[in-house]
Amino acid sequence: MKRIGVLGCGLVGATIARDLSEDGRYRVTAADRDTRRLEGLARRDLLEPAQADLGSPEAVARFIAPFDVVVGALPSRFGFQTLRTVLEARKPYCDISFMPEGALALDGLARERGVCAVVDCGVAPGLANLLIGHAHALFERTDSAVFYVGGLPRVRRWPWEYKAPFAPADVLEEYTRPARMKVGGRVVALPALSEPELVDIPQVGHLEAFNTDGLRSLLETIDAPELREKTMRYPGHAALMRALRDSGFLDPAPVEVGGVKVSPLALSSKLLFESWRLLPGEPEFTSLRVIVEGLRAGARERRTYELFDETDAARGESSMARTTGFPCALVARLLAEGELAAPGVLPPELLATRPGLYERILAGLRERGVEVSERIEALA
Amino acid sequence: MKRIGVLGCGLVGATIARDLSEDGRYRVTAADRDTRRLEGLARRDLLEPAQADLGSPEAVARFIAPFDVVVGALPSRFGFQTLRTVLEARKPYCDISFMPEGALALDGLARERGVCAVVDCGVAPGLANLLIGHAHALFERTDSAVFYVGGLPRVRRWPWEYKAPFAPADVLEEYTRPARMKVGGRVVALPALSEPELVDIPQVGHLEAFNTDGLRSLLETIDAPELREKTMRYPGHAALMRALRDSGFLDPAPVEVGGVKVSPLALSSKLLFESWRLLPGEPEFTSLRVIVEGLRAGARERRTYELFDETDAARGESSMARTTGFPCALVARLLAEGELAAPGVLPPELLATRPGLYERILAGLRERGVEVSERIEALA
Repeated sequence: MKRIGVLGCGLVGATIARDLSEDGRYRVTAADRDTRRLEGLARRDLLEPAQADLGSPEAVARFIAPFDVVVGALPSRFGFQTLRTVLEARKPYCDISFMPEGALALDGLARERGVCAVVDCGVAPGLANLLIGHAHALFERTDSAVFYVGGLPRVRRWPWEYKAPFAPADVLEEYTRPARMKVGGRVVALPALSEPELVDIPQVGHLEAFNTDGLRSLLETIDAPELREKTMRYPGHAALMRALRDSGFLDPAPVEVGGVKVSPLALSSKLLFESWRLLPGEPEFTSLRVIVEGLRAGARERRTYELFDETDAARGESSMARTTGFPCALVARLLAEGELAAPGVLPPELLATRPGLYERILAGLRERGVEVSERIEALA
Repeated sequence: MKRIGVLGCGLVGATIARDLSEDGRYRVTAADRDTRRLEGLARRDLLEPAQADLGSPEAVARFIAPFDVVVGALPSRFGFQTLRTVLEARKPYCDISFMPEGALALDGLARERGVCAVVDCGVAPGLANLLIGHAHALFERTDSAVFYVGGLPRVRRWPWEYKAPFAPADVLEEYTRPARMKVGGRVVALPALSEPELVDIPQVGHLEAFNTDGLRSLLETIDAPELREKTMRYPGHAALMRALRDSGFLDPAPVEVGGVKVSPLALSSKLLFESWRLLPGEPEFTSLRVIVEGLRAGARERRTYELFDETDAARGESSMARTTGFPCALVARLLAEGELAAPGVLPPELLATRPGLYERILAGLRERGVEVSERIEALA
């Protein structure tokens, strides 16, 4: 029986570990520094919690030794060093840590060690990449790929109307880092939170979408003149965040106040994260819309993919944990079964070029109640 | 020749000192701790600058000894102690310091020392009180008195669309302190920034008015079942401030951030005041609308008073300095001429009960280009 080690047991890591252990085909060990998180993980025959501080490469190297496949679900700041450690140990790997560094820089290391790692393996980045890669592989020419993504609470509480389902520091980072995108064939950077537009999501109503810097590997892998990520929030949220940002409240550099030096970003984080805490059982949803246009068999067409997922109250799973964790768990199975053996660091859009993988991942999501619809329109 | 001492030489103090010295009837000495402020005061025959730190009662007592009349234009935190010091020294006094304490508590001291002090002698508080007092004195019964006041930059810059023409800390204080008002005959306190409504100011367009705690003495002196102050800003400002306040950014109590303790209010003040700084020569305006309803000669009527004043670019006077300083300078003349001799601490609404004073103050404002219109309507 293959053994899988899951690094990090936050909401997403726990969901991945549980999903893999329910298969009956794998023995899963899930590790976290925080024993309270491990207690939250119902002990099962094939699921074993392990207390471990995985903040250092040495600790990771020690922990992963017995496993056939490793899954990364650590905070983003540990993502890159952990990827390197796992590759050096020649372990197949898939990861949802949302590391700020470019993971493709370790492609050479992966090839040298003869091992495959799939990174950014969540919903966006993740499933969005897979869907874009799928359309891109079908098209003779891709004209544009745009995706809209948001994870939001069902109940809108003024003023933010937002709860952070994952690390809120990464959310603030997305509100400040310039958004790189492709426009008219050129890579440009626009301010985060710019170009707001209303998007109608049938199950919710109007959301407001704005530019964020989430294209990551797509900027390198998808040869198309128009590429954009837009993040969705309830209308008004972005304007408040722009007001805070443009008044200096999100500046990291310390300023002197009453004789002490303090980073405005650090204080704002403290206050906002208090307001943004997603409470246990608080209903939330994840919405993803991917629109890819291009030429297929000589005719222009548009492919629109839609995902809408809500909290699974019965299983106590947030939609964020489901939509982020399931793609990763499904890819971990591909690695465990040897169906992703070619060495290298792969972002999910490149999975779509391998026969059958796209279909298997979408079927796996469907089995777990995460439905992705596809609509095909002819364009003039 | 009578001598007048002006305490504080900020924008308003300087305007008062200049106005009084231009009369030719008084020798004026204007004092400030900050010599740069004194340099800004053009030296004239009858206007003498004096460097003095007036933060302590002893310093004030020493400074005021030679004067026949004293004018207070110090920061609000020095207002009350300075009023007491001036009364103890038996000097006639008028003041625009906007002290947080209730000045009427020193009425006994003023009577005992046989001296008259007019407090809150600016625009609002100040002129607004005088106008309400005027209507109230004419009416057999006052049903309601509401006033709308705002000082705003002519050019609206996102996101705050606001520049603080006076101490910005007092502005934030007005956004947090519960707004006491009279509704249905009872004193109630509603949250600051509450009950926003659009107000059409002909020279500007729509402003948004919301509850603030500025009635002060009017709550005690005007016997009417409905009394309200509303502050006007460009639409949207109040919503941003509510978002900040309700997320903890205006809390004074320190929170721990990165190992140091910092007051969110202190940091927010630092960042906001930077954005809110009124630059020299930046055009601004002051708008005041006072609506008083009541019974006169057995019939219900509404009296609406309007003031709209803009920066006097030729004289380099902001409308805030003009509309706040001129009422005070006019009252200082009344004190100097012995026309306000009855001892006690008077808020401006009580001036309106003395024959001729209301007319003289409004005529004085008109001579200085500050026009107050009055409209009288019969009510059903």
